[in-house]
Amino acid sequence: MDDSDMILLAHGGGGLLTKELIEQVILPPLRNPVLELLDDGACVTAPGPNLVITTDSYVVSPLFFPGGDIGRLAVCGTVNDLAMQGATPLWLTLAFIIEEGLPVAELRCVLESVRTAAAEAEVTIVAGDTKVVERGKGSGLFINTAGVGLRIEGTEVAAANARPGDAVIVTGTLGDHGVAVMSRREGIEFETKLVSDVAPLADLAASVLEFGADVHCLRDPTRGGLTAALCDIAQASNVCIRVREDALPVREAVAGACNLLGLDPLNVANEGKAVIVCDPNRTAAIVDRLRRRPLGENAALIGKVDAAPPARVLLETRIGGERILQPPTGEDLPRIC
Amino acid sequence: MDDSDMILLAHGGGGLLTKELIEQVILPPLRNPVLELLDDGACVTAPGPNLVITTDSYVVSPLFFPGGDIGRLAVCGTVNDLAMQGATPLWLTLAFIIEEGLPVAELRCVLESVRTAAAEAEVTIVAGDTKVVERGKGSGLFINTAGVGLRIEGTEVAAANARPGDAVIVTGTLGDHGVAVMSRREGIEFETKLVSDVAPLADLAASVLEFGADVHCLRDPTRGGLTAALCDIAQASNVCIRVREDALPVREAVAGACNLLGLDPLNVANEGKAVIVCDPNRTAAIVDRLRRRPLGENAALIGKVDAAPPARVLLETRIGGERILQPPTGEDLPRIC
Repeated sequence: MDDSDMILLAHGGGGLLTKELIEQVILPPLRNPVLELLDDGACVTAPGPNLVITTDSYVVSPLFFPGGDIGRLAVCGTVNDLAMQGATPLWLTLAFIIEEGLPVAELRCVLESVRTAAAEAEVTIVAGDTKVVERGKGSGLFINTAGVGLRIEGTEVAAANARPGDAVIVTGTLGDHGVAVMSRREGIEFETKLVSDVAPLADLAASVLEFGADVHCLRDPTRGGLTAALCDIAQASNVCIRVREDALPVREAVAGACNLLGLDPLNVANEGKAVIVCDPNRTAAIVDRLRRRPLGENAALIGKVDAAPPARVLLETRIGGERILQPPTGEDLPRIC
Repeated sequence: MDDSDMILLAHGGGGLLTKELIEQVILPPLRNPVLELLDDGACVTAPGPNLVITTDSYVVSPLFFPGGDIGRLAVCGTVNDLAMQGATPLWLTLAFIIEEGLPVAELRCVLESVRTAAAEAEVTIVAGDTKVVERGKGSGLFINTAGVGLRIEGTEVAAANARPGDAVIVTGTLGDHGVAVMSRREGIEFETKLVSDVAPLADLAASVLEFGADVHCLRDPTRGGLTAALCDIAQASNVCIRVREDALPVREAVAGACNLLGLDPLNVANEGKAVIVCDPNRTAAIVDRLRRRPLGENAALIGKVDAAPPARVLLETRIGGERILQPPTGEDLPRIC
């Protein structure tokens, strides 16, 4: 198949054309001993019994955005969900729903990103599926990845595990992914380049999880941003999370773009950041460890956990006031991931 | 949320409306101790190290068809992929891509089918995801399921495992699923009701796999039908598969509808059937065992494996001729599963 070809409906029919698409386009960049068998399922050997399983579909529009594309996102997003559950990612599945007419060249670009991101995250793509829908019944390309990981021993992270007195850390700047996608979608050009932070966090998470049971919660603030992640933790743990506005790392360009677009950077999706809730005695050591790594260089202590008022997230504003952070309703940013 | 409501774009935004959709509509029918945590991933304990992982997206149009719907299909299809790899299905993930405007009532019907099929297949839905795309960027509903199963001990089934002398068995009538979907899509009414065969095959497969290493290949003839499944086996094993036309079980109504629609029932998808290649000494016992079960009551010995010509599937026709079964190109039946 040439790069100038387009995907046809028949490429999803399960016959010769499907075989051609898989063998000539999809398999070559991803080839490994398990995947190349192209069997109904992949046989693997688990290195231990405590597994984590997750799934996510990716419907980001546009498919390509500054700093990444839907392929990199589909690998990192699912790898990060495993990492946030305290697992070492092992295997991914990769399922495409292609809209008839997608240029093969675009699919190849996405596959190359999948390959690179999977190598970065040290995860193996073991099973796949490809479907094609008629023009006007899809949106270029949707990807689903499911992931299986091995839970790291001694890890007790869970959204319900935050305790009064805990520290709240974020591993870097907020809002980069969502603003990069939105600015590309809206055709807005900013002088400073806005770039998605999409990256695999498993390695960074593992380095934090060496602090064992002192790490109470790990969460990646994707859809709904930091606000949604903190609200989830506050509700699940029935605690109050207080964050300080002046401690929140937000790039100037992101803050500016959010102003222009009418968005709150705290509600905007991130794809390469984590929120960590930990024993307060470990705060300095964890922030220090994070800052030694490229993906954690802007890590910051942003707040603390109190007992009351329960199931609440409060923002101490720059001018000394306090406001409730409400979970976003979800209208602001469709199809950001 | 009421049944008269429609899914809005904001239901996919990751905020309050997403939460409402998940907690009021999606979770209740599927609730179990793992899923209800609604965490980023599901923590499970594997009962053994030899796992099988698979994924499939379902884009069937229409969403509801005689004998099933996209929900039942999404569970059975992935369960069957695990079963065909010689695994006992354990866990499924379930990811929805919903087109804005889908009636909540339809989503509830699909979820009820998911619940019923998962119970039938004795598989637990442990993780999920929900995305919403704009009207005109989807097709009502797409579903991805990924599955993890435990490989049954002593099983050696693989597409590359067919050997000259082997018997080829099919567990029931051919073409039922594809014809049921096509007839509904084309608005064709037949006097005899055409009904999809969509069903979970794990139990049936397990009963066959009690014959251990004497069972060489297991394959469910889905997209591309029996022809595609046999061509895959013939190529992977580098053997010739000869099937007898008069031995192939095809319902009269399906044969009639195929005639009308210009389809070959051998190329039409099945969703509740398996092809078994086994040691010829076990043929009678396996067919007998299959026929004692409702899902295998029309099981039949349909052919045998020869050494040459390699990588070929030959059909001995009713009038004594022989023709090559070519893998379908994939143009006949888009979006059948």
